[in-house]
Amino acid sequence: MAQDDIALIGLAVMGQNLILNMNDHGFVICAFNRTVSKVDDFLANEAKGTKVVGAQSLKEMVSKLKKPWRIILLVKAIQAVDDFIKKLVPLDTTRYFQDLKAKGILFVGSGVSGGEDGAPYGPSLMPGGNKEAWPYIKTIFQGIAAKVGTGEPCCGWVEEKAGHFVKMVHNGIEYGDMRLICEAYHLMRDVLGMEQSEMAQAFEEWNKMEVDSFLTEITANILKFQDNNGKYLLPKISDRAGQKGTGNWSAISTLEYGIPVALIGEAVFARCLSSLKDERIQASKKLMGPQKTQFEGDKKSFLEDIQKALYASKIISYAQGFMLLRQAAIEFGWTLNYGGITLMWRGSCIIRSVFLEKIKDAFDQNPELQNLLLDNFFKSAVENCQASWQWVVSTGVQAGIPMPCFTTALSFYNGYRHEMLPANLIQAKQDYFGAHTYELLANA
Amino acid sequence: MAQDDIALIGLAVMGQNLILNMNDHGFVICAFNRTVSKVDDFLANEAKGTKVVGAQSLKEMVSKLKKPWRIILLVKAIQAVDDFIKKLVPLDTTRYFQDLKAKGILFVGSGVSGGEDGAPYGPSLMPGGNKEAWPYIKTIFQGIAAKVGTGEPCCGWVEEKAGHFVKMVHNGIEYGDMRLICEAYHLMRDVLGMEQSEMAQAFEEWNKMEVDSFLTEITANILKFQDNNGKYLLPKISDRAGQKGTGNWSAISTLEYGIPVALIGEAVFARCLSSLKDERIQASKKLMGPQKTQFEGDKKSFLEDIQKALYASKIISYAQGFMLLRQAAIEFGWTLNYGGITLMWRGSCIIRSVFLEKIKDAFDQNPELQNLLLDNFFKSAVENCQASWQWVVSTGVQAGIPMPCFTTALSFYNGYRHEMLPANLIQAKQDYFGAHTYELLANA
Repeated sequence: MAQDDIALIGLAVMGQNLILNMNDHGFVICAFNRTVSKVDDFLANEAKGTKVVGAQSLKEMVSKLKKPWRIILLVKAIQAVDDFIKKLVPLDTTRYFQDLKAKGILFVGSGVSGGEDGAPYGPSLMPGGNKEAWPYIKTIFQGIAAKVGTGEPCCGWVEEKAGHFVKMVHNGIEYGDMRLICEAYHLMRDVLGMEQSEMAQAFEEWNKMEVDSFLTEITANILKFQDNNGKYLLPKISDRAGQKGTGNWSAISTLEYGIPVALIGEAVFARCLSSLKDERIQASKKLMGPQKTQFEGDKKSFLEDIQKALYASKIISYAQGFMLLRQAAIEFGWTLNYGGITLMWRGSCIIRSVFLEKIKDAFDQNPELQNLLLDNFFKSAVENCQASWQWVVSTGVQAGIPMPCFTTALSFYNGYRHEMLPANLIQAKQDYFGAHTYELLANA
Repeated sequence: MAQDDIALIGLAVMGQNLILNMNDHGFVICAFNRTVSKVDDFLANEAKGTKVVGAQSLKEMVSKLKKPWRIILLVKAIQAVDDFIKKLVPLDTTRYFQDLKAKGILFVGSGVSGGEDGAPYGPSLMPGGNKEAWPYIKTIFQGIAAKVGTGEPCCGWVEEKAGHFVKMVHNGIEYGDMRLICEAYHLMRDVLGMEQSEMAQAFEEWNKMEVDSFLTEITANILKFQDNNGKYLLPKISDRAGQKGTGNWSAISTLEYGIPVALIGEAVFARCLSSLKDERIQASKKLMGPQKTQFEGDKKSFLEDIQKALYASKIISYAQGFMLLRQAAIEFGWTLNYGGITLMWRGSCIIRSVFLEKIKDAFDQNPELQNLLLDNFFKSAVENCQASWQWVVSTGVQAGIPMPCFTTALSFYNGYRHEMLPANLIQAKQDYFGAHTYELLANA
């Protein structure tokens, strides 16, 4: 009886796709769902002709599993996870599982990236939790994960409890990447006055350069896309964006740990502002911007400048994201493998890009690297972009284009490379208020 | 026996000063402290020669109080407040206090601003909680509060539970104001190459203009201050600033409520970055900024531009702060009196300024005002500053000066007045990922 490799509970789209993916990789999967009719539906439709088996109850499910049981819970809230664990425990009779807390269940929380489409073709998996579980699930997890380069799986052991944190930071960085592309698009459209097809072409060309990534690739596709009437769809789509998820959590945790990951913060705030559509319509009728002028420089060269500003800002964003991971590792006593994390993000993830390879190189060369900007490759890359970046920001400012992420990135770079910042004035004021005293510089 | 007007528990500096202040206003105060020896110390020293009385126990304290008892708890953590309330209840025998939750204790939480120095000369008080308490404490609270204009007290009833929230937003705005002044100072020092005395003079002059405020006033004083060796103190003070308090909380709550109060966020992030001193020293040796050049424009005129950039950014910051209050009011069902809040901040508070009067005027004219920027005075003020603001940002960017708050404010202004933002690209991408669909514009 017990011949199934793994069970998966939760047959929503992502769960179904993961099962089919595991099946394609030669594993035998037992599917289960709280609403049991979903199991039958799945076996009769999506899973028809596969080796996937189903179960009508948890009891039946575990009876079919090889020991130790490998069970993936793909359910929405942590409460649901708890509920399932409580129900599973009484079904178990062996000594190992009698004391749940001590050693019974080897619980693993895994970040999954790639969206619903990613799952069947190979998601990026970021598992962390009880490390003893890893040998039992490694073959399956790495087997079904996306592959990059010469077949390296986008899945490695993260660190106790860090799996979901790593995924959260990934999503925060994704917010940043998406916002940076918006700013480039805004400058192209409103400063250079480019047509939609020209912008699509620009992103296609950029996709052969440093900023080559999944997000620039789909930006080109979205810009090209026409609806049934032969009109471009993008200008018709509403400019409100939501922000209540993991991007927002990343920004909050960055504040909680006191790490200046301002770019993710600005990306979230930009979405908040975008959602105030009615107020903006009112404001747009009342508030004057700078006088509209024709762009007088060399358009082609300015387009290159925008690409460089995007690249430099992106480097800052990733440098900040890794600062957050680094601080969390300190707070929680994790030993994170930053190169390994980068590898996990290289396939299937929404932020997948050629660029991540450079980050992996940097951490491979120096696993103790304190900040990406201190790596020679990134140092030179930012310095090479600096003049273009300054020029784009100045030009955009003169044209009244909001560029919160381009500018916060530039401020971070300029602040980070200043030995002496003006915060001495803040210290002096706190002393002035009577409640504090100031700290003198070491050489004062 | 029962002739004391009010009791105060918690004899730290702030508590002592509040007692002395109330004494000066003719009230009879009973002082108590958990460590009872502090009561004796206080009566024998700071309170010597006053009408302040002490108590050796809570029982003695309440026996001396006029009914209904008015008790100020000035203790650090909410746990301590709970503990004291639990101890007070059993001492009471009257019908009123038998059911604590229903009507026993009229609990008021009050924001207090002005720092430890503010208390004896009159703090700003922001009380909220059980409104039935207000008639019993109004005379005392408004009596001791700071006064502005023709004697208006910086204290009014805020709204149920909103007292501390209003104080938190005040502190967030304070973070913003302080950071904006830092950026002005940085530009003066490193772009214009001004001497310390010149900068002091500039802030003194500004203090007769739109940006007149307590914080610019003390900036001038701090710039002038020399130590015993006749050297300016400011350049010797460390440039690390802490950020773990209410400024940080404001930024977090702005994310929680989804309101784009990016300026407070950037002010917090700037402090975070300032605290990474060792890393910055390392980075300053490695990362290249733009080539240093002499400022070639008209220095006097650029100084005026900086003042205008500061003023415009400050308007944005306050507009954002009131957006946060407005959203919190919606979330909690508060009816906030924005003009009244502004009045409370006008005296004693660290952000006190002439400018707040203009905000009060705006809300007096239109209590339903959705955003400060939509008020005619502020609309014109920002528009008048716009060219200077753009110029300062462009010049600072060329010189490699970090200006996270000047630039985020400008981005907000430019974003807020755009009917159409580039966030349609984000919506389109979310659809592309498969999990969402896009919303079309109303006119599409």
